[in-house]
Amino acid sequence: MSLVLDPAAQDLLFREARTANTFTDEPVTEEQVQAIYDLVKFGPTAFNQSPLRVTLVRSPEARERLVNLMAEGNQPKTAAAPLVAILSVDNEFHEELPKLLPHFPQAKDMFFSERPVREQAAVVNGALQAGYFIVGVRAAGLAAGPMTGFDFAGVQKEFLDGDHTPLMIVNIGKPGDDAWFARSPRLELDEVITTV
Amino acid sequence: MSLVLDPAAQDLLFREARTANTFTDEPVTEEQVQAIYDLVKFGPTAFNQSPLRVTLVRSPEARERLVNLMAEGNQPKTAAAPLVAILSVDNEFHEELPKLLPHFPQAKDMFFSERPVREQAAVVNGALQAGYFIVGVRAAGLAAGPMTGFDFAGVQKEFLDGDHTPLMIVNIGKPGDDAWFARSPRLELDEVITTV
Repeated sequence: MSLVLDPAAQDLLFREARTANTFTDEPVTEEQVQAIYDLVKFGPTAFNQSPLRVTLVRSPEARERLVNLMAEGNQPKTAAAPLVAILSVDNEFHEELPKLLPHFPQAKDMFFSERPVREQAAVVNGALQAGYFIVGVRAAGLAAGPMTGFDFAGVQKEFLDGDHTPLMIVNIGKPGDDAWFARSPRLELDEVITTV
Repeated sequence: MSLVLDPAAQDLLFREARTANTFTDEPVTEEQVQAIYDLVKFGPTAFNQSPLRVTLVRSPEARERLVNLMAEGNQPKTAAAPLVAILSVDNEFHEELPKLLPHFPQAKDMFFSERPVREQAAVVNGALQAGYFIVGVRAAGLAAGPMTGFDFAGVQKEFLDGDHTPLMIVNIGKPGDDAWFARSPRLELDEVITTV
């Protein structure tokens, strides 16, 4: 075996984990969210910039506003999921850098004084952290999957502000009946990885 | 415990895993790369678009060209790492969609006929896959960490083409002596997660 991670964990995080389309009624608790964050916060980002922000949509009123902003095909599962999370990035993440990178606080002004540079860094590092977050949700025994089919400007206006850009929306919960489509094919190794 | 994933796996993937600054001489094998890919290829992306591509820099000549394109502070570790991977995205990923999404091949033309839309989708979903890839490297018992301090135009010109945009470069290998800096602080839960 070339992997050190035990096969049950491989299954839990990747091989048997799937993007659910139906859910049970079992709630996702604050304790689960805390445990997920306390695990995935350690995933690396460039300059430890940590731009990902998460908005948990818990109130029925907020859920209704969000469902109305989803693409039609995503509305039923976003209405049904025990928890919905809006993942966004903070384009003003550099304000936290002196705290996040205490051995090199100059990074804030040396590299991130310009907003377009921050926006580009935030989307790459925020999406990287979204990858860790999805793995973390699965580590809690829950199904998660990214959706990008929604009104980005509407979600920003309704739930965020001008400094926060939506990245994706994730439905979270225990899979229900007939939760999966058939697994879609993946690219072969030699279509993805080349050697020079 | 709110997590299902066993504590040893939590440590391996997040809590004890770190971005290494020094490495042993132990090579990273093709079998390890294959095992990592065969695990992380199952991570979800929007429309299963799977835009991430990986260029393994194995020849001494290619390594030298790459080191010259790294920011000065990244050059010694990129020169020393047993394996260096250039992660990029394929902005023409939509050509593979009929194969990747056999139940909805129209997505190629309905959503991805315009290059700017593809570029935005590719960077978000490619960085998401980079998160899975880094977790997969750690699942193989190896250290990995993203670097964005390099000449992006130079790396694209030397190693890629006009359809592939560099995302980050990852040094991979077994950690060597004094491999870690002190762990940098992370944001508190309430700085990252809000509830509506």
